[in-house]
Amino acid sequence: MHKWMKIAHDEALEGMLSDDGGPFGAVIVKSGEVIASAHNKVLQSKDPTAHAEINAIRKASAILNSFDLSECTLYTTCMPCPMCLGAIFWARIKTVYYGATEDDAAFGGFDDKAFYTMLEDKEHSLNMQQIDHKENAALFTLWNKKSNKTMY
Amino acid sequence: MHKWMKIAHDEALEGMLSDDGGPFGAVIVKSGEVIASAHNKVLQSKDPTAHAEINAIRKASAILNSFDLSECTLYTTCMPCPMCLGAIFWARIKTVYYGATEDDAAFGGFDDKAFYTMLEDKEHSLNMQQIDHKENAALFTLWNKKSNKTMY
Repeated sequence: MHKWMKIAHDEALEGMLSDDGGPFGAVIVKSGEVIASAHNKVLQSKDPTAHAEINAIRKASAILNSFDLSECTLYTTCMPCPMCLGAIFWARIKTVYYGATEDDAAFGGFDDKAFYTMLEDKEHSLNMQQIDHKENAALFTLWNKKSNKTMY
Repeated sequence: MHKWMKIAHDEALEGMLSDDGGPFGAVIVKSGEVIASAHNKVLQSKDPTAHAEINAIRKASAILNSFDLSECTLYTTCMPCPMCLGAIFWARIKTVYYGATEDDAAFGGFDDKAFYTMLEDKEHSLNMQQIDHKENAALFTLWNKKSNKTMY
């Protein structure tokens, strides 16, 4: 296996065997060095957002003291789910190496593929309703008027 | 404004004015009680995943000691971005009330809408490459053989 993916793979095994969560691991590399490695901790932390990629991004951001990981590469044992792909976009990561597919994850009983289908078809059982549009849209007018703000 | 949305709106204002992050707030309600409220802290925490909805979900999960928030309703000042919508799916939240739209967020310079377009068109500048498929797919075979595992 590729040496960085091997670390992600070992994370996935460790996480699964210690009952921290599903068999998912991720590694973030910058300039040829591992900045952070992490595995899924949904079960251990009771946090539904504690996927391997999210945990690795949070660790790397803390270590680099930046929300901008555009100089980093992510290695993940499985194709990122929509949540994690969104996090990768926000972190401005430019390159992702992944191992298993959404079909492999579905074989293990995970909903990654189902959530992609829900997003693509815009058909899901989530009940979404818009309220108080005017007051909340006004927040962005205030934001635009704010001086010395940092964009991200 | 709706009373729970007002709390989310106040969170957004507080977060923006204290330079914690963009003007986004979220509240999680269960059985007529606020379980958690949060705002965007990307700038304060340097964590690109620290969106209002993610922060609220993490807080509520910690308070309820569960990754399953299916009994909860989320109020958010803006249509959730793909990362946050994915987190909402994983948390099994069934109802979301949102205020502003992706277009309003784009007016404030945020990429929520751009990321939805990237997902829909499957066209983005992110370089994704598959490596080591066999070894990583095998993780799910191990997972399926694991006894006494918890699904999520």
